[in-house]
Amino acid sequence: MASEHINIPYDELTELCESGDLNAVARLLEELHPTDIATALDGLKIDDSEILEIFRLLPNEVSAETLLEMEGELRELLVDSVSHVELGELVEGMETDDVADLVGEMDADDARKVLAGMDFEESEAIRELLKYPDDTAGGKMQAELIAVSADATVSNTLIDIREKGKEVDHFTSVFAVDVEGRLVGTVPLDRLILADADTVIKDITDIEATRVTVDVDQEEVAKMFRRYDLLSMPVVDLDDRVVGRITIDDVVDVIEDEIFEDFFRVASLNVEERSMDSALRSFKLRAPWLLINVLTAFASASVVKIFQGTIETMVILAVFMPVVAGLGGNAATQAITVMVRGLALGEMNHLEHTRRLLAKEALVGLSNGLLVGVLAAFISYLFGASLMIGFLLFLAMTANLVIAGVCGSFIPLLLKWLGVDPALSSSVFVTACTDIGGFFTFLGLATVFLKAGLL
Amino acid sequence: MASEHINIPYDELTELCESGDLNAVARLLEELHPTDIATALDGLKIDDSEILEIFRLLPNEVSAETLLEMEGELRELLVDSVSHVELGELVEGMETDDVADLVGEMDADDARKVLAGMDFEESEAIRELLKYPDDTAGGKMQAELIAVSADATVSNTLIDIREKGKEVDHFTSVFAVDVEGRLVGTVPLDRLILADADTVIKDITDIEATRVTVDVDQEEVAKMFRRYDLLSMPVVDLDDRVVGRITIDDVVDVIEDEIFEDFFRVASLNVEERSMDSALRSFKLRAPWLLINVLTAFASASVVKIFQGTIETMVILAVFMPVVAGLGGNAATQAITVMVRGLALGEMNHLEHTRRLLAKEALVGLSNGLLVGVLAAFISYLFGASLMIGFLLFLAMTANLVIAGVCGSFIPLLLKWLGVDPALSSSVFVTACTDIGGFFTFLGLATVFLKAGLL
Repeated sequence: MASEHINIPYDELTELCESGDLNAVARLLEELHPTDIATALDGLKIDDSEILEIFRLLPNEVSAETLLEMEGELRELLVDSVSHVELGELVEGMETDDVADLVGEMDADDARKVLAGMDFEESEAIRELLKYPDDTAGGKMQAELIAVSADATVSNTLIDIREKGKEVDHFTSVFAVDVEGRLVGTVPLDRLILADADTVIKDITDIEATRVTVDVDQEEVAKMFRRYDLLSMPVVDLDDRVVGRITIDDVVDVIEDEIFEDFFRVASLNVEERSMDSALRSFKLRAPWLLINVLTAFASASVVKIFQGTIETMVILAVFMPVVAGLGGNAATQAITVMVRGLALGEMNHLEHTRRLLAKEALVGLSNGLLVGVLAAFISYLFGASLMIGFLLFLAMTANLVIAGVCGSFIPLLLKWLGVDPALSSSVFVTACTDIGGFFTFLGLATVFLKAGLL
Repeated sequence: MASEHINIPYDELTELCESGDLNAVARLLEELHPTDIATALDGLKIDDSEILEIFRLLPNEVSAETLLEMEGELRELLVDSVSHVELGELVEGMETDDVADLVGEMDADDARKVLAGMDFEESEAIRELLKYPDDTAGGKMQAELIAVSADATVSNTLIDIREKGKEVDHFTSVFAVDVEGRLVGTVPLDRLILADADTVIKDITDIEATRVTVDVDQEEVAKMFRRYDLLSMPVVDLDDRVVGRITIDDVVDVIEDEIFEDFFRVASLNVEERSMDSALRSFKLRAPWLLINVLTAFASASVVKIFQGTIETMVILAVFMPVVAGLGGNAATQAITVMVRGLALGEMNHLEHTRRLLAKEALVGLSNGLLVGVLAAFISYLFGASLMIGFLLFLAMTANLVIAGVCGSFIPLLLKWLGVDPALSSSVFVTACTDIGGFFTFLGLATVFLKAGLL
């Protein structure tokens, strides 16, 4: 992806850093979007102490936003380095969900001190949010919202909103509630502006508007946003009282994360790994999978070992083993990737779809197997193999591509149905299937042909 | 992903279809969200003619929305089957960008007829949109928007909006323009509601609000939305006049598609493939990659062929070849996946980040290589190999995991820098690197050791 529109003046910043003029660095950064400031502070080659100093030189509202845009180690560094008083000032202007995220990352003692320094009402709201697990609707929502009476008129409601709206940053809709505070529905601001002054709110309320309860999983929330093209959604407690709202910008991150997580699982990666992690952390996160891979690889090796005698008789078979295994692995990667996309987009929520898809993958595997099998047989002949070995290679590759299609699509599906960790559908296990299947077919058939005197 | 919240009453629908009561099917579907209706029509086991009949029985606004939510063959079927008059009625209530998408899919003759049946002003707006390539800001934007004078007061502007707003579905902000129609900035509706009646619009306008010109790539647009947490963005022509707006719900699809495309390229898939494509289409889209894979696989095979004599002397080497190749392939998949995520999120837009990452991947490869190498050497000993062969395996695996880390991370980066199609970073090429590298190290060292009398 190109990055022409992200204008971070790295050269100028680097020069100023080298000259030691951190005040000038801060003034230059101030002009940028907080997201870009966070990226710049991470990208500059300066000491942690200098980062901290520059961060302190930024105006309060800018440093607060910048802190929220930071990730991982840099964010930890800053949170750990500034005092509780400074932190208290930083979180002053933040939205409750952002403060809850920040506080949630601190140890209990620090968190208590920061909350104690805040306005009582706000710290209560944050304590409330902290009760919900991070990956639920409750954990994603913010407490700031505008609830209006469903029975009021538009003109009274506008007065009401002017009152309440000062404390809520950015809202695109308000929520209509009944006398008991139960959610009636959502009122988008455009409808409110277009309505006549004496219209009753109930009449312009979208009563069927999607809502979620606090305990719904964030993945499910993201799916609803995507499916119904929502901008924001009310979150209700078990008594149907509005307790928060989730906005699309929080959900975009969830949508992205969910997709990346799916592919991380396929690639046998821990979903927590980030490109900027230290080598030690990446090593630790990847090592368990590779150690398991050693075991699955030796399972493939043991299939080869069974046929060691056959290879001894015809060493050329060893030359073609990587062709059988390689094609199987890549065809399986194709099938699994298409399946993961389909599952992520909810395209397989009916048995009929699933049945169709499995039949298709077997058929695609068969036809591609026949195709690459013929080509491979031809090339093997140029490599000096006999026609009969070419035929063997053709048979083994056809079989292995059917195995690849079926394993690549069926394993993730089966695991989903069984509710088992989808990580088990990772490439480590699927390539084990195609290696074992491929070697067994190729070397097994070779053994039979040899015994029958055909080779 | 779970789907408890998607309530399609398949059992009831299937029963009604079987009893032939299509009117009842339509009445039942009508109650659902258009997205769910589209999914249901695709999932039900009924003939195309029955789908068409049910579709016609739906109220006009419902069938229009449903058509927009459909994908691929089903959408084509319906567009091809209904008459131009019916299509004209369907598109009446749609937003211009949706109509432009629909019309853009038809052949020129049909498109002309549908546009001819529309209101002149609207068909002109659509013709205008059709000029822009599908994957640019111009292609993604809709023409419906509300432009207000930057010099007007809030109270006059509210009257103005009530006038213009009737024709625009869903808006969360309006655009302030100067006397020449040039964009001044964005005015979110909440600011408009909270402002005093006699405030001048200019004073509540977000002048620094992000804008794009019609020709900017959709990927770049998506990146800006994500980076700056936008809900909608004005699109301007080269004279800075507002010609359209892009809303976040259109961008969420782009964001998703871009991520899926990245991983499709890694998996050697055509980005056009969908899980519900026919077997013939999938076969055709995947075959070219697998045919290329036959060639890369024989490149690996030819490395093995060079050392055929060595394998002849020690057949046990053939047994361990899959271990060297398998670990290399999976370690490369890990590296490439982390890199693709980092590139997609724009985490590598500074040379310093890149340098750090490559050094890291080499180091992670080395340390994991040492680890799995030791385990593999140990297991090979249990397989009856000599200590010296175990040592060889250890060396080859360490080298191959370094190759995997460097190839997996460097190849996609290099291709990005060179501006070459990132498809070349696909698993087909990266596994070729690790296969060739692995076999060359393992069998090459074995040959040297044999000649030196060490084996």
